[in-house]
Amino acid sequence: MDIDTVNALSYEDFGNIFGNVVEKCPIIAAAVWSSRPFASLSALEAVFSEFIDALPESGKEGILRCHPDLAGRDLQRGTLTKESLEEQAGAGLDALESGEASRMARLNEQYKERFRFPFVICARMNDKKNILRQLSERCQHECTVERAHGIEEVKKICHLRLQGLVCHDAPNKL
Amino acid sequence: MDIDTVNALSYEDFGNIFGNVVEKCPIIAAAVWSSRPFASLSALEAVFSEFIDALPESGKEGILRCHPDLAGRDLQRGTLTKESLEEQAGAGLDALESGEASRMARLNEQYKERFRFPFVICARMNDKKNILRQLSERCQHECTVERAHGIEEVKKICHLRLQGLVCHDAPNKL
Repeated sequence: MDIDTVNALSYEDFGNIFGNVVEKCPIIAAAVWSSRPFASLSALEAVFSEFIDALPESGKEGILRCHPDLAGRDLQRGTLTKESLEEQAGAGLDALESGEASRMARLNEQYKERFRFPFVICARMNDKKNILRQLSERCQHECTVERAHGIEEVKKICHLRLQGLVCHDAPNKL
Repeated sequence: MDIDTVNALSYEDFGNIFGNVVEKCPIIAAAVWSSRPFASLSALEAVFSEFIDALPESGKEGILRCHPDLAGRDLQRGTLTKESLEEQAGAGLDALESGEASRMARLNEQYKERFRFPFVICARMNDKKNILRQLSERCQHECTVERAHGIEEVKKICHLRLQGLVCHDAPNKL
């Protein structure tokens, strides 16, 4: 879809297409629509980022809490969103060995116990080994650092999901 | 559930229970959890209201756009949330006569064309006749007035949904 097509969408169609660009936060896409028309894919992405940045800290924690655990209950039960399933499977998180799975589960719990939101990482930019290493390291951070880190990962996920939906501004530009 | 039980919930359980207190906006419940413990049901409700009020105007429009049309496509297709279905059915919107249904559909489209968000009203505080009358009247408002009006209706819906989940602070107090 090119940006002109995006700009011609009703809020209902825009919500159906972009509603999960930020995981389980359709309100964000619905708010972003107010800023149409968008000059480019980059401009559209910038509006998503600015909306997220303008939220109070509780709202940023709210976004993180709308994300599923990696290799967690939603993956096991088949209740992940389509986008999350593809991303987690792409990183090999649907095929962990038994030792990896138990380590991931233990670290996820440790992380949530410490920060009161789940570990969020852009799975498509990492493999399972790297994800486990970062999860272990990030468990040691301060809460404010980790909240900001999680939100940066949300923006990376948003960037890739938008790229999958809208044509690049120009060949080789991104 | 009493307020002590609410305060003991993990963010995951809180999200599962309160995630649709604001229609299709689980991020709001997930953000509200950051303010626990809550002294009372009223205090919990106040945190929801304050979060909504602190959003930029685009965010308030985003909330409204997450609401389904009254007697609209989601009702016909069976894709309403459980809460919305109960509320719309309670107001008689699942049993409109043919003339009422076509008038509602026409006014909904007129409203959305004018304001770029759907008509939101607390169905449990109104019957179908009253809803049709208000929809017709509110189509004439200015956009800023109507956005604020819609958000006040969101808060009424939120109030009743919270009352259905959490015990009153004290008998006869609310």
